[in-house]
Amino acid sequence: MKLIRFGKPGAEKPGILDVKGKRRDLSSTFTDWDRSFFQNGGLEKLRGLELSKYPEVDDKVRLGSCVPRPGKVICIGLNYSDHAAESGMAIPEEPIIFQKGANTVVGPNDNILIPRNSEKTDWEVELGIVIGKDARYLSSAEEAKDYIAGYCISHDVSERAFQLEMGGQWTKGKSCDNFNPLGPFLATSEEIEDVHNLKMKLWVNGEQMQNGNTNTMIFDCYYVVHYLSQFMTLEAGDVISTGTPPGVGLGMKPPKYLKAGDNVALEIEGLGRQEQTCSNA
Amino acid sequence: MKLIRFGKPGAEKPGILDVKGKRRDLSSTFTDWDRSFFQNGGLEKLRGLELSKYPEVDDKVRLGSCVPRPGKVICIGLNYSDHAAESGMAIPEEPIIFQKGANTVVGPNDNILIPRNSEKTDWEVELGIVIGKDARYLSSAEEAKDYIAGYCISHDVSERAFQLEMGGQWTKGKSCDNFNPLGPFLATSEEIEDVHNLKMKLWVNGEQMQNGNTNTMIFDCYYVVHYLSQFMTLEAGDVISTGTPPGVGLGMKPPKYLKAGDNVALEIEGLGRQEQTCSNA
Repeated sequence: MKLIRFGKPGAEKPGILDVKGKRRDLSSTFTDWDRSFFQNGGLEKLRGLELSKYPEVDDKVRLGSCVPRPGKVICIGLNYSDHAAESGMAIPEEPIIFQKGANTVVGPNDNILIPRNSEKTDWEVELGIVIGKDARYLSSAEEAKDYIAGYCISHDVSERAFQLEMGGQWTKGKSCDNFNPLGPFLATSEEIEDVHNLKMKLWVNGEQMQNGNTNTMIFDCYYVVHYLSQFMTLEAGDVISTGTPPGVGLGMKPPKYLKAGDNVALEIEGLGRQEQTCSNA
Repeated sequence: MKLIRFGKPGAEKPGILDVKGKRRDLSSTFTDWDRSFFQNGGLEKLRGLELSKYPEVDDKVRLGSCVPRPGKVICIGLNYSDHAAESGMAIPEEPIIFQKGANTVVGPNDNILIPRNSEKTDWEVELGIVIGKDARYLSSAEEAKDYIAGYCISHDVSERAFQLEMGGQWTKGKSCDNFNPLGPFLATSEEIEDVHNLKMKLWVNGEQMQNGNTNTMIFDCYYVVHYLSQFMTLEAGDVISTGTPPGVGLGMKPPKYLKAGDNVALEIEGLGRQEQTCSNA
């Protein structure tokens, strides 16, 4: 299944893309694709419904993030060996974890806001994991599979000066407004045959910048969920961004960054496409 | 005013300590001390009420965190010069920011859970700021005063091996379950004559470990709120933990850490007292 949310910012309704790709409004049956939905068997209930009975939604309506604001957005840093190399950083021995403010999550085609005083706003196409039930001290990566609701494109927009040149921890360059476009849809796990073999692409103004594949992840999705659950409770609806492949602006010679008016497009195989315009905050 | 929340975990009701220190149940008028409350003039409404008309609450009832789960918990690292020295780290030139998972927030007297595989669970008494209205690109530290709802004790429990020895960013040792007891009450700003001159104390099994004062902060509360607002939108109800004074377990020779059965007590002048028992997760 492909779960969407549509409507104005802050007033999105839950919907779905049916087998023909038509948007359907499911707000008469569900409140939202939130923690309560996932934690209380919502996906099973959804699977049993006759979707063709639900009203269609116009394709022009704005899409919101495919899940509502998560309890946590956890990111894995330097999780593609080539990206670590281009950033001039060592390949990590254990997953590097950082957080983005959950209020950065916006729709897949909403504007990227270039923060004030920013000269180094950068792009990062990432595979996002959405947690399907509360996970704590999982016993293995194998067990972690049952705790994943599905996958989506997660754009981990980053300000490199804020992240790397202003002291300490990365959060400072990761939590600006609109820094996490999420969607267009959440593909439930069974939609994706092999999550560790998906092409990932990103273009800026039509020029392809990133061209990777999830098969070069250092720590795979199941390991990451298992690993994180040793340090914190992952709650249903939480989002994990699993790292970016090579081709970010920071790694170019000379580095290249986003400015107002730029167009950014992202695709991951089986997970659709995002497209954003940059504007000044 | 001193705002409290009381009742079972996950079902807390909003209340207040009246001028005589009696707990009053305000759930007939307010849903919770949440973002919507602060953002929509709730504090002004509260100031106009005749509190003595509200029912008393038994002192034996559990206290929850003084505000419900925040949108974000932002922490300032190494914000006391003596603590930076005892940690063997340089005094930061700009505030160091990191995040805790917001799901770590619990009541002021709830158990500290020692994570599995933890040998270095440490204490940190901190002054917590609660944001009173959404703050974005504030123009000055002076302006930031108007965006603070009030202050509370925030216990920034930390696992030092997870934080410092397992790769990368600090989040890993800051987001374990129950790692952020908050309260017992939120003192609104006008309750605190000088927030930058408050004694801070912490005891483990009756032995005083921390003995500091907010007057040795490197970056003061108003500067911190102003500074953070340049990098992210602070939302009403968000919590900022402003750093800890000297005396944490990591800084002792040899280092000393918490174990199941230990008792931890925290006080900040004008902000009450927390007391926790440690138990295994």
